[in-house]
Amino acid sequence: AVNGSRLWQSLMDMAQIGATPKGGVCRLALTDLDKQGRDLFVRWCEEAGCTVSVDRMGNIFARRPGRDDSLPPVIMGSHLDSQPTGGKYDGVYGVLAGLEVVRSLNDMNYVTEAPVEVAVWTNEEGSRFAPAMVSSGVFAGVFDLEYGLSRADLDGKTMGEELARIGYAGDREVGGRKVGAYFEAHIEQGPILEIEGKTIGVVTDCQGQRWYEITFTGQEAHAGPTPMVRRKDALLGASRVVDAVNRIGMKYGPLACATVGLMQIHPNSRNVIPGRVFFTVDFRHPDDAILKAMDGELRAEVERIAGEIGLESDFQQIWYYAPIKFDETCVAAVRKGVERTGHSFRDIVSGAGHDACYLSKVAPTAMVFIPCIDGISHNEVEETTPEWSTAGCEVLLHAVLDRANA
Amino acid sequence: AVNGSRLWQSLMDMAQIGATPKGGVCRLALTDLDKQGRDLFVRWCEEAGCTVSVDRMGNIFARRPGRDDSLPPVIMGSHLDSQPTGGKYDGVYGVLAGLEVVRSLNDMNYVTEAPVEVAVWTNEEGSRFAPAMVSSGVFAGVFDLEYGLSRADLDGKTMGEELARIGYAGDREVGGRKVGAYFEAHIEQGPILEIEGKTIGVVTDCQGQRWYEITFTGQEAHAGPTPMVRRKDALLGASRVVDAVNRIGMKYGPLACATVGLMQIHPNSRNVIPGRVFFTVDFRHPDDAILKAMDGELRAEVERIAGEIGLESDFQQIWYYAPIKFDETCVAAVRKGVERTGHSFRDIVSGAGHDACYLSKVAPTAMVFIPCIDGISHNEVEETTPEWSTAGCEVLLHAVLDRANA
Ligand SMILES: NC(=O)NCCC(=O)O
Ligand SMILES: NC(=O)NCCC(=O)O
Repeated sequence: AVNGSRLWQSLMDMAQIGATPKGGVCRLALTDLDKQGRDLFVRWCEEAGCTVSVDRMGNIFARRPGRDDSLPPVIMGSHLDSQPTGGKYDGVYGVLAGLEVVRSLNDMNYVTEAPVEVAVWTNEEGSRFAPAMVSSGVFAGVFDLEYGLSRADLDGKTMGEELARIGYAGDREVGGRKVGAYFEAHIEQGPILEIEGKTIGVVTDCQGQRWYEITFTGQEAHAGPTPMVRRKDALLGASRVVDAVNRIGMKYGPLACATVGLMQIHPNSRNVIPGRVFFTVDFRHPDDAILKAMDGELRAEVERIAGEIGLESDFQQIWYYAPIKFDETCVAAVRKGVERTGHSFRDIVSGAGHDACYLSKVAPTAMVFIPCIDGISHNEVEETTPEWSTAGCEVLLHAVLDRANA
Repeated sequence: AVNGSRLWQSLMDMAQIGATPKGGVCRLALTDLDKQGRDLFVRWCEEAGCTVSVDRMGNIFARRPGRDDSLPPVIMGSHLDSQPTGGKYDGVYGVLAGLEVVRSLNDMNYVTEAPVEVAVWTNEEGSRFAPAMVSSGVFAGVFDLEYGLSRADLDGKTMGEELARIGYAGDREVGGRKVGAYFEAHIEQGPILEIEGKTIGVVTDCQGQRWYEITFTGQEAHAGPTPMVRRKDALLGASRVVDAVNRIGMKYGPLACATVGLMQIHPNSRNVIPGRVFFTVDFRHPDDAILKAMDGELRAEVERIAGEIGLESDFQQIWYYAPIKFDETCVAAVRKGVERTGHSFRDIVSGAGHDACYLSKVAPTAMVFIPCIDGISHNEVEETTPEWSTAGCEVLLHAVLDRANA
């Protein structure tokens, strides 16, 4: 019912924008390349007969009217931004699978009861601007607009400025409207489906997350004449926290994840004892109580380590959301789609955050996962197959029809 | 005999170039600011009647003729480049104390037997371009010219390109001439003189150094759905090495120093397990055998840590020099200078590397240290006093006269 090779071709076309040497994509949120990706998406949607609107967070909605256009829309979507060395499918797949559903409905001259929309959410990755999923968060009322627009990158440029610069500061109000259902198709980004030989993951839950920003301040001094015992080495402190974060992740395993992904060393000179280090911590667990326990251990470790080296420490939890359960009706719609299409499947908990997590606060929501090779994502070598891609889109189509015609 | 307030004023004037908010200096080697500093120095030297020449490494020599100008010159000098957040005295003091000696000789219409020169050595700090002391090293024949000119910063710009860009790629041959004696005045950059209440450090030795560059390569992957046990986290590995480096420094203390000052994380995104980390290690000890033992422990630790996480490791020792003993006659000349001027003093081993280390390979060499407040250097708050500054310059004058009239 869907045109899998058209979908695959669109994925490959979009992957040209920001293509990296190792076959991946660098299309950071609100850069010129992000604008190019958005422009291409908008053109494709207009060619498919959709009406396109943009809200004040730069979220894009491409609408295909329903028979009763006053009904709340069923929205499909995900994001077009990537990690600095990201893959071709993370986010893009959910957006273009949504577009392929629209194109397929057009091919069949099929009119849904409720309107159907394809959404692109701004800055889902949280790489250039933290936290992740900020614009779907504003849409869902989790963050206010001012918070969203004021998120700044490491150079101090804000999302508001950058949206205006690339011409995607729309005038539509962010959220505040009824959504019939939200479905997001995505690569799993982990190894489970492939290991178990399943084509579809029916996502029932998402892990909770806590993100932290920590700054250790010690004292810059000369690496030569400064005795070891007089040092206040901020990098030594940060390094011990990296090790502690890993210990906490292992301790609460196998479901816990604990990562330090970003670190900035000041002044970052070979023969200067680092005086200041800024770094981040990313904690995840499907059980909120365990996530809380991990938080407590981190706080204790950071205090202990700062104390033993004599560092000042600034510790901020900058993001938190509790584990999320998706809507039973929407999950059932996905499951029905799997049954109709006959693909192998299993229920799965998402290890990554998705715009669906926030959409679930204001709309019945579920997700469809497809496998990715070796479970690798946030990496240029991220890969999936045309067969899996087609299968996920078929399931998405059926789930959407189930809800749009309900 | 010297004009201490003129010297202090020159230090303050030079400190305007690249002045930082916290009272320090950022004048990285071969930047536009380095050029400004060099231009000011050259103007001052010409005003003092010196003939200025520049060699192919950008080393500057300002010459005051001697009675017998065919005698090998007595050279005073140090460097004008700084750390990214450096102080006003590190290097600059030795250069401007040399200039003050020349100005004082002019004031007294004093003609030395041998000519006297003030030298500025290019890129002593080793911060923008590694290693440190590279151009005095070329002068001394420790490095060849091609090696010196091809040193590249982290953006890939070479010293040769940058010398040409700022107009300091001179045409004089680097080194290859006889030097009667070399004296370098410098702040101690450590706490010993101040703690012991001594005004002058008679530097007899310099610690040896070993610098390393290490790259750990693991696998970038998503911080959420990637189980802890499947990770190859390059930052976890680098962090464990930072801790190991500290342990090695403590173990061979109190004289050992061991520092990781620079680290670059790739892709440096909060929710990506770091796939590659580049970092440096700086080891120092006054005893070459211990420095060798530290080297052995580092190699073993890096191998062990890479193995336990499953990282590929690229390990390079990029710089090494054995501990250095200065020339007895020159050290005696400094000691005589201290006796004549009546300042308190002690013999001292330099913890930092200095251009004098390399000059000692081709010329009788010694150094004069003055205290700095709290022993802090490579820090914007680096401070000394006008009294100490004057005292060091007086000792320098006497040591130079001793050798120039020998
Ligand atoms: N799906 C995805 O990669 N989202 C980024 C936010 C996160 O790190 O969970
Ligand atoms: N004196 C000084 O700071 N030199 C830099 C080279 C070193 O780190 O020893």
